[in-house]
Amino acid sequence: MRSHYCGLLTAQHAEQQVSLCGWVNRRRDLGGLIFLDLRDREGLVQVVCDPDLAELFKVAYTLRNEFCIQVKGQVRARPESQINADMATGAVEVYASEVIILNKAAPSPLDANQNNSEEQRLKYRYLDLRRPVMSDRLKFRAKVTSFVRNFMDNNGFLDVETPILTKATPEGARDYLVPSRTHKGEFFALPQSPQLFKQLLMMSGLDRYYQIVKCFRDEDLRADRQPEFTQIDIETSFMSAEQVMNLTEEMVQKMFASLLDVDLGQFPRMTYHEAMRLYGSDKPDLRNPMQLVDIADLVKDVEFKVFSGPANDAKGRVVALKVPQAAAKVSRKDIDGYTSFVGIYGAKGLAWMKVNDTEQGIEGIQSPVAKFLTADIVSEILQRTAAQNGDLILFGADNYNTVCEAMGALRLKIGEDLAITQAGWQPLWVVDFPMFEQADDGSYAAVHHPFTAPVDSASFLTTPIDQIQQGDLLSNAYDMVLNGTELGGGSVRIHNSDVQAKVFSLLGISDEEAKEKFGFLLEALKYGAPPHAGLAFGLDRLVMLMTGATSIRDVMAFPKTATAACPLTNAPSSANPAQLAELSIQVIKKPS
Amino acid sequence: MRSHYCGLLTAQHAEQQVSLCGWVNRRRDLGGLIFLDLRDREGLVQVVCDPDLAELFKVAYTLRNEFCIQVKGQVRARPESQINADMATGAVEVYASEVIILNKAAPSPLDANQNNSEEQRLKYRYLDLRRPVMSDRLKFRAKVTSFVRNFMDNNGFLDVETPILTKATPEGARDYLVPSRTHKGEFFALPQSPQLFKQLLMMSGLDRYYQIVKCFRDEDLRADRQPEFTQIDIETSFMSAEQVMNLTEEMVQKMFASLLDVDLGQFPRMTYHEAMRLYGSDKPDLRNPMQLVDIADLVKDVEFKVFSGPANDAKGRVVALKVPQAAAKVSRKDIDGYTSFVGIYGAKGLAWMKVNDTEQGIEGIQSPVAKFLTADIVSEILQRTAAQNGDLILFGADNYNTVCEAMGALRLKIGEDLAITQAGWQPLWVVDFPMFEQADDGSYAAVHHPFTAPVDSASFLTTPIDQIQQGDLLSNAYDMVLNGTELGGGSVRIHNSDVQAKVFSLLGISDEEAKEKFGFLLEALKYGAPPHAGLAFGLDRLVMLMTGATSIRDVMAFPKTATAACPLTNAPSSANPAQLAELSIQVIKKPS
Repeated sequence: MRSHYCGLLTAQHAEQQVSLCGWVNRRRDLGGLIFLDLRDREGLVQVVCDPDLAELFKVAYTLRNEFCIQVKGQVRARPESQINADMATGAVEVYASEVIILNKAAPSPLDANQNNSEEQRLKYRYLDLRRPVMSDRLKFRAKVTSFVRNFMDNNGFLDVETPILTKATPEGARDYLVPSRTHKGEFFALPQSPQLFKQLLMMSGLDRYYQIVKCFRDEDLRADRQPEFTQIDIETSFMSAEQVMNLTEEMVQKMFASLLDVDLGQFPRMTYHEAMRLYGSDKPDLRNPMQLVDIADLVKDVEFKVFSGPANDAKGRVVALKVPQAAAKVSRKDIDGYTSFVGIYGAKGLAWMKVNDTEQGIEGIQSPVAKFLTADIVSEILQRTAAQNGDLILFGADNYNTVCEAMGALRLKIGEDLAITQAGWQPLWVVDFPMFEQADDGSYAAVHHPFTAPVDSASFLTTPIDQIQQGDLLSNAYDMVLNGTELGGGSVRIHNSDVQAKVFSLLGISDEEAKEKFGFLLEALKYGAPPHAGLAFGLDRLVMLMTGATSIRDVMAFPKTATAACPLTNAPSSANPAQLAELSIQVIKKPS
Repeated sequence: MRSHYCGLLTAQHAEQQVSLCGWVNRRRDLGGLIFLDLRDREGLVQVVCDPDLAELFKVAYTLRNEFCIQVKGQVRARPESQINADMATGAVEVYASEVIILNKAAPSPLDANQNNSEEQRLKYRYLDLRRPVMSDRLKFRAKVTSFVRNFMDNNGFLDVETPILTKATPEGARDYLVPSRTHKGEFFALPQSPQLFKQLLMMSGLDRYYQIVKCFRDEDLRADRQPEFTQIDIETSFMSAEQVMNLTEEMVQKMFASLLDVDLGQFPRMTYHEAMRLYGSDKPDLRNPMQLVDIADLVKDVEFKVFSGPANDAKGRVVALKVPQAAAKVSRKDIDGYTSFVGIYGAKGLAWMKVNDTEQGIEGIQSPVAKFLTADIVSEILQRTAAQNGDLILFGADNYNTVCEAMGALRLKIGEDLAITQAGWQPLWVVDFPMFEQADDGSYAAVHHPFTAPVDSASFLTTPIDQIQQGDLLSNAYDMVLNGTELGGGSVRIHNSDVQAKVFSLLGISDEEAKEKFGFLLEALKYGAPPHAGLAFGLDRLVMLMTGATSIRDVMAFPKTATAACPLTNAPSSANPAQLAELSIQVIKKPS
């Protein structure tokens, strides 16, 4: 029915007869003519309906916004004076010879000025997706997946599908469950990732695997979370961490070059500890140049307990954050606001210091805590932070994690507020993560997942378990970070059943529990499992960053609301009692 | 760790130093040397371990089957006399300088002669997949998906993901349900297909969509069914059925040419009624030349009620099936067997006729029913079936559906038994399906699905509902059939809300039920829905056919058993009571 896309007509098509299909984006009646902006997936073109063609004009006169029509006509170059430079097709228009209404449209329930609630937008998703800004994101997403697949195919990776109906996975988040009809009282779980299956594929000798795959987590939702999300999932045998990082870095570099014409350059590497030390975050946004500066050693002996307490505690931390040229821009009220902000992360206060004159040392600063500090301390703080006149210095003092979280978040916030964070793209790799993290009750959990190999597997294996310093162990894991967002993470996996059993043991997983949950993995490791490593990217977040969208909902065709519902289809909904009986389950509470 | 794949070494690599990684496929100690067949994804190569290298030889001596090892060494061309023509790498061997054991392997629990139960194979799937015949199928599958994606991308189709957690779909099979935690007592369903979402994408103006996507049906399983399966799902706006068929035919033709070097030629078209008439099936296997021949008109007046009953019944059918040159090959016992066989399909008997001498008419045949037939009837039967001396003719007489099913199945079985069915590839399109099929209770169901457009939507819309002959309505649907298997099916969809409402009404779906189940579709049709059409291929079956596998389980990495369980991971399994409580459900029977 169509000879050309509306949005792709150019002066090259002038004088050609065309047949277009699309939607009436706007109709204007002007000087006796009717002008239509006709829209399809590729854009808009202006259609002219001439009253001399009475039949045509009668039809054109009935057209309303969003009518689906077919237009036959001739492309005409517009006179120089009428060229619309704001429109990709602005050099031409189509002189209609026939207009056929394919389907009428009731007035849109969505507000044309986009004052629509998220609920309303999702309910009429098919109308919201007609906006070019929305459909462009889906088009871009398709380009990303196509790029990834070609890259992986060309590197010898095999696209292999793994099950969606599977066993509860150990990623730690809550599983979605699916009752089994043939095994009464039992449940499948939807995968949080294909982690164990991709490892099994390596044990199958498939050598290189990838998949763009749906994953599921039944978690309370935030702006960047959805019950189902998509991973670019990669696993390979016989490659080191270094090789996996190089390969996936190359993929992302080439993707940005190809789809955004952006040169990301080589990605710097930073250890986890360095990232926490400088940025208070394991996914630092390097577009923001501010860094945390440790000063615990300077304030051990001051009378101000807020500083000296953490400074003398092995688990404490005291840092300064210099905000360049902010002394005059940040008011007392702003500082009160920032104090509340760091309170969200558990910080009990926020000390500050304005630098008026670095030449004058302690005399040249203004600070409520100045009275607790000596001239030497102030001088050293100014030196370590490389302070200039007009700078503002903020202080965080608390236990290590609280300082990192609070001051790391404050750094980002001030970076945005004062436009210190620059535009552009700042990728990096964060490496040498701790293997385990300790909870308040003293127990340890895996930082990545319990299949991540230690950096030094051999010494891990030979060290008696009671001599292992769990907190000090480093894992062979790596995260790719872009502009403060974790794009993907991966690791070298454990391929030795003794190492795997020892890790389970350190995690407090009993032999029985390990056998129940991961028995098949431990068994599989006994049959010549190859060394293997991999990585998974969050596709939604990647596309969100690349398109400049502010929510992953805007880069998915049919996302769920914050309560995990679909206003379009009304899912979830109540089930047929007969079907529940077949599944041997019943609802124990009334629908809320 | 690897410089080359084992299976890709050729004489071109002679004298090169290589590093290989893989599994010991076999070890032979011969003439003081140790020979290893080393296997990786791409194949085998022979490795020679020389006792002069004492360290190496000591390691080689400890190797057992399926040990995962790294071998460094030099590629050597084998002397002419030692070239192994049965091995892709048979012109070379690798003279090892170092063998490193990456992982040991316990003896395989699978029988090397492949006398393994399906259960056992699935439990040790990662070992079963090490067999080249198995891994080759997964590699081929990856080639198919890659081919499809490139073809669709190049034709302007966008890969768009649709939800897995969605609302119960109307395809008719049983849904898998997923309890919602945030909406207590309510359930998501896993999609039987993305049918409605892809139609909504057309209403969004996305124009051309495809997806290779998991679908789910909680049905009792047969050899070619799995709880989760994969569709190549396609939808397009502004294209006719003809255009969709041409495009997808081109895709399959090019796929066969590219991946199998097979020229499928242009696909013939056949109406549903013609297919039922000639083959008793809507997915005829044209590799089998036998056809059903109608003879009801000949036997209306015979005394044999088995023939004359159906012959005089408007819903009856009487057919002859000529089996060429089978009179001498098929014994009485064989015929008894075939009689039992058609009994499975409800046929009450199987009359037969051996053709000894066509010249002699009724005198030249041998048949238990000969006494009921006149010379004219026999002569006409011989003529219509173009019988030759030595042929066997079988008869089916019953109601129309039973004759089609029983004689259609018998045609296939005899085709296999007597090697009448030829090798090769016989694709076709089956078109002009009935819109509705009538159940025994007189009610009508959709043959495809209730969103399929009638061939003539305009007259359908204007004909008063009580004047519509439901049984005679044809739908604008099309199935692609290959060698008796339905590869894919599709249709032009309804894009007019009045047509859709009328179809629901004819299906006995009340306004209320239609609104409850498909309200969002009826609503969406009001806002300028474009004409659209599509098709979905069963990827598993396509790959099964192309690889010559006999079950779709053999072309999936991790399939389920016939009771929808996974012996590898032990899914499904019992759930944590606390999690069930969170989901507001409980199990009402003990696990079986």
